[in-house]
Amino acid sequence: MEQLQTLPRLFDYDQMTLKKDNGNSLTGHDILSVDQFDRDALSYIFTRSQEMRELVERAGGCDLLKGYVLACLFYEPSTRTSASFIAAMERLGGGIIPITQGVQFSSVSKGESLPDTIRTLEQYADLIVLRHPEIGAAKLAADYAAVPIINAGDGAGEHPTQALLDLFTIRQELGHIDGLKVAMLGDLRYGRTVHSLTRLLMQYEDISLRFVSPDILRLPMALMNQLIDRGVKVRETHDVADVIEHADVLYVTRIQKERFADPKQYEEVKDCYEITTELMTRAKPNMIVMHPLPRVGEIHYRVDDDPRAAYFRQVRNGMYVRMALLAAVLGKA
Amino acid sequence: MEQLQTLPRLFDYDQMTLKKDNGNSLTGHDILSVDQFDRDALSYIFTRSQEMRELVERAGGCDLLKGYVLACLFYEPSTRTSASFIAAMERLGGGIIPITQGVQFSSVSKGESLPDTIRTLEQYADLIVLRHPEIGAAKLAADYAAVPIINAGDGAGEHPTQALLDLFTIRQELGHIDGLKVAMLGDLRYGRTVHSLTRLLMQYEDISLRFVSPDILRLPMALMNQLIDRGVKVRETHDVADVIEHADVLYVTRIQKERFADPKQYEEVKDCYEITTELMTRAKPNMIVMHPLPRVGEIHYRVDDDPRAAYFRQVRNGMYVRMALLAAVLGKA
Amino acid sequence: MEQLQTLPRLFDYDQMTLKKDNGNSLTGHDILSVDQFDRDALSYIFTRSQEMRELVERAGGCDLLKGYVLACLFYEPSTRTSASFIAAMERLGGGIIPITQGVQFSSVSKGESLPDTIRTLEQYADLIVLRHPEIGAAKLAADYAAVPIINAGDGAGEHPTQALLDLFTIRQELGHIDGLKVAMLGDLRYGRTVHSLTRLLMQYEDISLRFVSPDILRLPMALMNQLIDRGVKVRETHDVADVIEHADVLYVTRIQKERFADPKQYEEVKDCYEITTELMTRAKPNMIVMHPLPRVGEIHYRVDDDPRAAYFRQVRNGMYVRMALLAAVLGKA
Repeated sequence: MEQLQTLPRLFDYDQMTLKKDNGNSLTGHDILSVDQFDRDALSYIFTRSQEMRELVERAGGCDLLKGYVLACLFYEPSTRTSASFIAAMERLGGGIIPITQGVQFSSVSKGESLPDTIRTLEQYADLIVLRHPEIGAAKLAADYAAVPIINAGDGAGEHPTQALLDLFTIRQELGHIDGLKVAMLGDLRYGRTVHSLTRLLMQYEDISLRFVSPDILRLPMALMNQLIDRGVKVRETHDVADVIEHADVLYVTRIQKERFADPKQYEEVKDCYEITTELMTRAKPNMIVMHPLPRVGEIHYRVDDDPRAAYFRQVRNGMYVRMALLAAVLGKA
Repeated sequence: MEQLQTLPRLFDYDQMTLKKDNGNSLTGHDILSVDQFDRDALSYIFTRSQEMRELVERAGGCDLLKGYVLACLFYEPSTRTSASFIAAMERLGGGIIPITQGVQFSSVSKGESLPDTIRTLEQYADLIVLRHPEIGAAKLAADYAAVPIINAGDGAGEHPTQALLDLFTIRQELGHIDGLKVAMLGDLRYGRTVHSLTRLLMQYEDISLRFVSPDILRLPMALMNQLIDRGVKVRETHDVADVIEHADVLYVTRIQKERFADPKQYEEVKDCYEITTELMTRAKPNMIVMHPLPRVGEIHYRVDDDPRAAYFRQVRNGMYVRMALLAAVLGKA
Repeated sequence: MEQLQTLPRLFDYDQMTLKKDNGNSLTGHDILSVDQFDRDALSYIFTRSQEMRELVERAGGCDLLKGYVLACLFYEPSTRTSASFIAAMERLGGGIIPITQGVQFSSVSKGESLPDTIRTLEQYADLIVLRHPEIGAAKLAADYAAVPIINAGDGAGEHPTQALLDLFTIRQELGHIDGLKVAMLGDLRYGRTVHSLTRLLMQYEDISLRFVSPDILRLPMALMNQLIDRGVKVRETHDVADVIEHADVLYVTRIQKERFADPKQYEEVKDCYEITTELMTRAKPNMIVMHPLPRVGEIHYRVDDDPRAAYFRQVRNGMYVRMALLAAVLGKA
């Protein structure tokens, strides 16, 4: 069968290293994991994200990606994330195929494999943003796709664009990343965003991390050991009161009551994981509070009026970072 | 906590009066209620709507809102209304974040408050069109939003763009509004569109209103008293036959059978509220029949061929009025 | 009632013949059935489709349909087809009203008739693509619409754009259509795509057709008789092995197990309807395998690596053909 041939893969994620001497080494590449990004790549993305911010503030948008089409393929609905990608593409002048209500309502769920769905959509689109409930789905999609795949969350796996916008927010708000004291709070065991941000922070110098959680939701051992091996300063505690005075960044995540065997257990400890205006009086004047949202009470609404509440600015940064990534992957940045 | 500050609100609806000496006083404002619009403001919007009509007929669309993004946030699906706003934004060259299938299918329903959802979307969009099943939702959204909110229906509350397109249709079809005889027919008790249009008509001179409904669906007393206090000529009747000969405008709405305790009661009276070709033979040659749609039989299909059937032209006018409002609110009209 | 008038219909499908001396006779016309297309019309569409391909490969898109709005009205979801039309419209610079999640989730399902929904949407859009579960729905819509309707599948009825893209794929892959040996495989009884493609192929010279199916899924008698009357060379068989060596085109469709009274019956015959790499070793070096997708096992995944596997290129051709049709119907081709 000499006429058989294997389609060349544009990108082998496992073997990829970002080429530092190249203006934009992301062109044609998938965005699957935060582990793809070293400091130089992060610096490049953040510079471009800042330019996107200036563009939006000055002109609303541009025609940089005119003639390109993005498919947003969400096997589970995530209005927040899909809206962010759609707005990013709109503001760059590109077109969108929105499949964002969850594929259970759609024909692509009729027994078709993910690779077939991806190879169908790539006939129409120049780029696919994929959200899928199963870990590894984005990698599988990328293995079959000829166009770049951006992982917008694969179950308990990765959500790299969230981690990039988190780190960009820290840089924007505080001017630098090296040397910061970052407190992570809430569900540190299952919190995908905490894990990814932690892994990105490992690349910076003199980072000090404080982990605040109930015992049953502590940071996974493997990640903790990795931090220790890298020499990152870490400490764990049960109460946000222990870290509030020194934190430069307080990264809050939601604790689901259902994680506790007995709801009473949750009621007993929840005060240790809620951010109130009273608590904020003890924080540094130039610290910031972040949250991946949505929240359901862990940051009190009155805190929103505090200029240190950065979570809605964080949302906006998500659009800038995604604009930068779309442009970079399509070779236009 | 001296570092706390309250975000300035762009617009306080309760205190707003439209500035007449300003070309466009809607810039940056929310559109929440028909009560925001005095005659000058209505005249301004209608002039702009007519220009939009000419634009569409001549060129299909333009780039006036290029670089702007509109979020359509529909907590309950309303294809008619969302399609109208989407078409309006498309024809003005702007981008759209469509969240139009009802938020129950979406992650923003996962316990997140309306203010948080709004403050998230406003990071991506320059303007939010909101449909929500609860009265007051648009006002609540506007209280928290830094970008303008357009109320596309808040339950039993308001649906101001519908009332504006209704009035614009009357003006387009008949050339003027002062002095008209307008008959309202159907469910006048719960009919949001009837109430809003009635309130707008109060601002015009020498309007005569006829209300045609079963007893259990009569216009609410408060609104009736308001009309009488204003000196508007009003009469109520049970049968459209009583008003058909004199009406310049016949505004028809649907009567839901479920409003009646006994379905037989509905069958007994329904002939008094159906528009037939026979009935139309008794109407003035230049009167118009309107309906907010969808209909389910209250206007017979054969009436559609009558040039006085204005309800589909009314739909089209909705697009022009919404184009005018989008442009005005974004400061581009 | 002398003031009554009937709206002129732009297009009467039953009486239409494509005018051959006209560059583009599709302008303003509905696309309802493959029977609208004679060889000249097919040739015209394929030439334009090829130009669209060159456009996309060179520039991604253009502004040909800027100022036009397409409504995608899908009463049942079909991500594949709606995504194809959306991408086609995006790449031509036009706007889209996406109602693609199935109308059961939408207000237009609230008892409104299809004609009313169509006459509403045509106020906003220049063109409506309709998918509906009932046979004849597209024809009904076209009877009421003043704007062109494109049938994107009406139940067991037609799906003409699929048949056009199938035929375009054959022409692109093999360079010509006359004289080809085409084998159709799978569910030939209910397979809408098989019937439509067969009817298009009847227009070409010296076509030889082989039909491969279980007894219970044979081609309908009426269509078979039509082929025989036309003098098309036809043969039927139970096993793909009988046709693989001579076929220029192998058009595969899915067999639903549920068609068989007893699942065991299906298991006994399924080997005769599966395409494997082993089978492909016996096929001509320049034949092609096609499939309307989605597949669920009838073409083995390892066949995908064979350059003769044309089904994903077939998907992409769908976008080009739809671009050509949109432009032609809107008078821009």
